[in-house]
Parts: sequence; C-alpha cells; structure tokens
Amino acid sequence: MRGFGPLRRSGPGHHRDGAAPRWTGLHPPGQGGPDLRFVRAVALLTDFGLEDSYAGVLHAVLLRDAPGVQRIDLSHMVPPGNLWHASYLLRSAWEHLPADVVVLAVVDPGVGSERRAVAVRLGDRWLVAPDNGLPVAVGPPSEGVTLDAVRMGLPEPSATFHGRDLFAPAAARLARGVPSGDLGEPLDPGTLVSCPLPEPRVEGNRVQGVIQHVDRFGNLVTNIPAAMATAGCQLRAGWRRITHRVRTYAEGRSGEAVCLVGSSGFLEISVPGGSAAEQLTLETGDPVELLPPDTAL
Amino acid sequence: MRGFGPLRRSGPGHHRDGAAPRWTGLHPPGQGGPDLRFVRAVALLTDFGLEDSYAGVLHAVLLRDAPGVQRIDLSHMVPPGNLWHASYLLRSAWEHLPADVVVLAVVDPGVGSERRAVAVRLGDRWLVAPDNGLPVAVGPPSEGVTLDAVRMGLPEPSATFHGRDLFAPAAARLARGVPSGDLGEPLDPGTLVSCPLPEPRVEGNRVQGVIQHVDRFGNLVTNIPAAMATAGCQLRAGWRRITHRVRTYAEGRSGEAVCLVGSSGFLEISVPGGSAAEQLTLETGDPVELLPPDTAL
Amino acid sequence: MRGFGPLRRSGPGHHRDGAAPRWTGLHPPGQGGPDLRFVRAVALLTDFGLEDSYAGVLHAVLLRDAPGVQRIDLSHMVPPGNLWHASYLLRSAWEHLPADVVVLAVVDPGVGSERRAVAVRLGDRWLVAPDNGLPVAVGPPSEGVTLDAVRMGLPEPSATFHGRDLFAPAAARLARGVPSGDLGEPLDPGTLVSCPLPEPRVEGNRVQGVIQHVDRFGNLVTNIPAAMATAGCQLRAGWRRITHRVRTYAEGRSGEAVCLVGSSGFLEISVPGGSAAEQLTLETGDPVELLPPDTAL
Repeated sequence: MRGFGPLRRSGPGHHRDGAAPRWTGLHPPGQGGPDLRFVRAVALLTDFGLEDSYAGVLHAVLLRDAPGVQRIDLSHMVPPGNLWHASYLLRSAWEHLPADVVVLAVVDPGVGSERRAVAVRLGDRWLVAPDNGLPVAVGPPSEGVTLDAVRMGLPEPSATFHGRDLFAPAAARLARGVPSGDLGEPLDPGTLVSCPLPEPRVEGNRVQGVIQHVDRFGNLVTNIPAAMATAGCQLRAGWRRITHRVRTYAEGRSGEAVCLVGSSGFLEISVPGGSAAEQLTLETGDPVELLPPDTAL
Repeated sequence: MRGFGPLRRSGPGHHRDGAAPRWTGLHPPGQGGPDLRFVRAVALLTDFGLEDSYAGVLHAVLLRDAPGVQRIDLSHMVPPGNLWHASYLLRSAWEHLPADVVVLAVVDPGVGSERRAVAVRLGDRWLVAPDNGLPVAVGPPSEGVTLDAVRMGLPEPSATFHGRDLFAPAAARLARGVPSGDLGEPLDPGTLVSCPLPEPRVEGNRVQGVIQHVDRFGNLVTNIPAAMATAGCQLRAGWRRITHRVRTYAEGRSGEAVCLVGSSGFLEISVPGGSAAEQLTLETGDPVELLPPDTAL
Repeated sequence: MRGFGPLRRSGPGHHRDGAAPRWTGLHPPGQGGPDLRFVRAVALLTDFGLEDSYAGVLHAVLLRDAPGVQRIDLSHMVPPGNLWHASYLLRSAWEHLPADVVVLAVVDPGVGSERRAVAVRLGDRWLVAPDNGLPVAVGPPSEGVTLDAVRMGLPEPSATFHGRDLFAPAAARLARGVPSGDLGEPLDPGTLVSCPLPEPRVEGNRVQGVIQHVDRFGNLVTNIPAAMATAGCQLRAGWRRITHRVRTYAEGRSGEAVCLVGSSGFLEISVPGGSAAEQLTLETGDPVELLPPDTAL
C-alpha cells in the first residue's frame, strides 16, 4: 500500500464548519487503522457500467487510500460520455447527500486530453471530476484545485483510466481530511467549463424548456422548476397539450398523461400505470413549453 | 443535517433480545460520531433501477440519518411496480439476513395515495415498506407502526418519493435503535394488506402451483415447497411433463429439463447449460401441477 | 446467528506481514461487536446478475458472519458461467485491491458436482472460489485449502447455492482472521484446475493473441501485454490492420480505429467516440496478430 506521508491533522482553514479535526494518517500509534467516524463518505457517479470491474476498482482504490470510508453508488449507468445525464443525476441527488460528502464523478470522454482534473468545494462538500461541466453542475464552487499526481505522491497516471489513478485517490484523500492544497494548485472557479444542462428561458408569458431526464418509469422530467408554474397553466410537449395537473401519480387516471411536481422540484410529465416517454414518444432534449392558463389550442 | 433531538438510549421494551443498548444520538460527548457496532444493518429492495440516482439517494439518506450504518442491496431491479417479484426476493433472502436487520422495501406504485407507510417487526428484524403486501410477504408481523413524518421530526414528504422522504428516514432511525413508538402510532398487524404471492393448493393427490420466479439463469422457481414432493412424483409445466428429479444442476444432462429443490426450498425446473424459461417458454405466473408418481400421460 | 466457537486470536503463522492480530470472535467482553479496523475487506465477483437477490444474499452472509466487514462489488454481471470473462475481470482488478483483501469469486457452473471449493493465498490476499480456473487466474497461489463445511461448523450446504452456503461463510471467516486451517484441509496448489484465459504465443517475429475482453465502451482488449509491442508495430484484427498507435483515446480521430495500451497493460483497439467492437464486428475470443513494423499488406 502506498504511504501517506507523516501523520497530521488538517488545518482549521479546511474545516470551516468547526467540525472535529479528522484523522489523516494511516496507522496512529496503538490503533489498527483509521476510525471511520472521522472519514467523510464518498458518493460515486460514473458511466463505467456494471459489466466491467471499472466501478469496483474505484471502490477498491477508495478503500485502499481511505480505509473505513463509507461509499455510496449514485449510479454507474450513465450512458457512455453523457455529461447531460450525469449532470442531472448529480443535481437531483445533491441536496440529499451527507453535508460533508465527497462526490467522485467520472464521466470523462476527454481522458488523456488537456482537460483539467479538478476538485471543487461547494459548502462543506467536495466534488472531484474532470473539468467538463460536471464540477459546476450543481452550482458555483467557492474554491477548487487542479489535481496534481506528483503533489499527491502518486505514480504517473495511466493514459486511459484517470478515474482509478487520479480522481479516486484524490477523493480518498479529501475523505480522510487531507487539505485540498496537498492535492494540487488552487484554481479560479470562474475558469471552469460550463455545465451542458440548459436553463429554461422565459419568453413573455411562456417558458421554453426541455425534457432534461427520462427516468426508469418513463417519467419525463422537464428543466422547468415548479415555482414557474402558476395555477391552471398548461404544458405543451411534442404534439400534446397536458392540462391535468395532479399532486401524485396515484391521482391521475391510469393511462392519462398528467403533469406534476417531481421529486427534484421540476415539472414532470407522467402516465400513471404506464410510461409517458413511450406514450408521448418523447426523449431527453425534446422541447417543452409552459403556457399560461388561458391559452387557446 | 437534520437534528435528532436529545441523546437517549432506547428502552428495554425495544430490545427484547437483551442486546447492549444502542446509541441513538448523533454526537455523544467526546466522540466524533456513532460507533457502527451499535447500528443495525439495513437491506434495500426497490424497483428504482440503477440508471437513475433514486437508489443512491436512499443510501445517502440512510448514511445521513444513521452515520456508519452498514447497507446491503438485495436488488433494485424489481420490474416497476411488481409486488410479486419483490415479495419473492424478500422471501428468498429473508432467513439469510442479519438477525437484527432493518429491511427497507420500496416498491410503491401507490405513492401519494391513501395506502399506509408502515414499519413492522418480525422476530428481531424490522421491515419498512408501503402497506401493499410487502410487509407480510415473509410472514405475520408481531407488531408495527404507521409511519408519521411529523412524529419523526421530518419535513413534509414530497408527493412522489416517499422512499427518500419517509421510508429511508424511518429505516435509519430503527437502525440507530430509536424506539418504534417514536416513528408513529402502533397498528394492528391484522389490518395489513395481504401478500400477492399465491400459495399452492392441494387437490386430492395433486398440488396446483405457479411459477413464482424466473431467475437470471432461466431457472423456473415454483411456489411448491420441496416437502410436498414425494419420491417419483412428476411436475407438469405447460405442455411438458418433467419426470427426472436431480439433486444438483450438474447431475442433469445438458439441455434436458430437470426438477430439483432450489436454494430457497421450492421445486424448481432447470435446464443444465441452458435456460428452462426459454426451452419451455414459461414465465412467472404460469401454472404448474405436481402429479403423483403413477400418473399416466 | 450461528456461533463461531470460542474467541481466539489467529496465530502468527497466518499473519506473516506482522500486522496486528485480528479479532476473530463475535462479542469480546465489554464491547458491542467487532471493530472493523481489524476485519479485512471482501471483494465480490459473480455471475448472479442484479435482478435476483443472490448477490444481496452473499452480502448478507458476509455481514452476518463478519460484522463490520467492508465489501466491494467488482461485478455481478459476468455472463452466466463465463469463466473467461470472470478471469479477465479478476486479473485486471487484482493489483488495485487492498493488499490484504479477501476475494469471493463465484462463477460456478459445476455447483454440486465433484469440483472442489477452495480458498487460496496469493501474497497477503485470499481468493475463495470453485476450483474451475478462477483460483489461478491471477497467478500461482502459494498455499490453499479445500473448503469443508463441517470443519467450519456450517449446516450442510444446499445442492445449488454454494456461494451462499460455503464460499461466503469461508470468505467471512478469512476476513475476520480465522486461520485457513480452520476452513479445511491444505491442498497442493499444483493440483488446481488451470485458467481458461489463453496466453499469447510468439511465432518468429509475430505474436498470436486473442480479444480477451470487450468493455462497455466497445474497446477490444487483447491478451498481448504492452511490453511485447515495439515502435511502429501493427495489429491485425479480423480483416483490419491497425497501424495508428496512440497514447490516449482523445488522440485518435473520431471514428478511426486506433491501438493503445489499455488501463490493464494490454494492447487495446479503440474507436474514439464510437465502439471498436461494432465497427470491426469483433468479439471476445477472436484472434489478433501483432506484426513487425515493416510487414507489407
């Protein structure tokens, strides 16, 4: 196992929340290993699938470099290279993650290119990812670093699997409380590549949006926040006008397309007992339009 | 992170097995967090799939509300809304789970309707689920409560994702040793909705059953317990009569449909080196019949 | 829960690395349970899929028999009975696993036959698997035992699910530091069944190999180690000659088949932005040939 350098405690600059200092070495005197109560949880999000051992190897590296770390799989089934899908999953899970979680997000079609590998901070959470839009998917980071294998004491990363050789070791170090300055040079968050997820546009009394996600149940999640919808408003999607607004899936008639506020706070089109995606033949990226209540057909 | 109220230890009424009292607060004096040795494991079973982050968010909530909790994924690939499939998985896994496990089973087509959200106790295990048959899938509970978000100090649950907002927080509390009375009002187990899995019927010297599960290997698991099968008995399934009874998959000839006792104790039809489901074109719900040894064709 | 026999510490013969003795009983006096800092991690590899609860049940047994154990899923999506696929995943993940990991590899088409169930040691890692090639997939073990349910104090295993009834309990015991001699009789590693993965053959100035794995991204991983490739060499695969050698996926032109060194150290054929498997219509087992630089078409 690789050494971690001398035992030390992270400085106060890192833990602004005043939490207890975290143990950052591997074998404190008189103990067999780290106490997981002082190791942050790591949440994983990748496009590695589950038929290879790529995702398992990330877990192995996390456990090797941060023994005792708690790990959460957000998903490894992001379609290959699909940053939009990954950004949506990150955004919808974010607020439910532990307050001091480290997120390891590896959807990395540009691995080996000049794209930066970064770790950014939002509140007390860290997000470790390639600089391809993921680092800003949930909001503007307050600070960040460009990951540096040499500074982390890592062997030279392979050319094709930075998830294993750079991102996971960085996430493990942050989970153990290693100060971010030990991972690489600080970066200006303003220079990060922007997120591919489109924001809705207000045009007069209408809102132009898109289907930003289709879930397993065939629900069509738009990118229009619930707050934009007024009583009686209508939703145009493809050739259909959805006027029946419900509060729960169970309220709709079976087979009828309805509109409701989904669990992530966006307007969503659903077909109780069926698949809205199939019935409306719509998919991610298709436009939707929010119309005022009195709009004629 | 949400507060849990004052530190306390669960009362003796809850831990009838005489186990050490469990720590139920978040930060006991002088410690960084909970000691996982006193937190029960949670086993998850859902129809959320793995392409969304729904299952990952359940894990996140468990970790947020029960830091250090050990988590087991039974499956998240239950076909959407399929209570039969979920009940079978629960039943076949049950006896192998830790003796004090908390099972979080969320297959919830009726989310947002009037169906109750409950936690029920069987032995020293707890099962947290919607009241749609899952709570009684493995046998009659000895006690239970109707989950109450207000009593648990939770924000009002969303209309569409009670797994995240109600069931997982309840499971986390039970894992931490919070007394069930703090989760909601006691319920009468006799009022719980019955399980959809059909029981076999004895008719004279025959047994009428069904295929209750088809596994990944194409094995057809009937709902007829091994104890009902006498030496030399035959199994009729679709247009086929299976007379070759074997003890292991390896005993059958490759490509030949055989009958054996599966790992959950039910009679099972298998094709060594192939898929019984494909060869016999049978699926879940199809009838099977156990015939006495001397039955003519 | 099954008892583990008297509390004891493993002997020095087992822990040659001089690590602290591991706790091997269930409830040491005055403590609520085991301290996970002294339990080895277990990595799982199976062909059980994720639609059944088979993989979840392995996790449950591990947690029941080795409370607090850290678990890593390498993959459960090995195609049914595919030892080649499983061997490759094991081989490519191996060096990244924790130095004292216990690997539980259950791809077991011969369950119930006379094939042995074994645990073998490589370095300080243990590998628990059926004797069908998996135990030697990553190299020659230094020692091993034939698993014996009676000696482990287990009930008689079912005829069809040794993963649950024999392999997982054995892995849990090794994770807890139980000496291997308590699991069964020592075996001669030379008698283990050989691994199905073919080695490349050198013929004159050419190397004959095969596609040993196709990953989720359609990359074709050969079994030819990078060290065998000289500057300017060519790779013949099917009807194609690949002459463009790159260092990273991002270096190739989109849609162009290129050759590079993959993350496991083997030559790999990749199509940036596409699937090499689809474009070249090649699959696992197809032959590839490494040609010297000056080979004419």
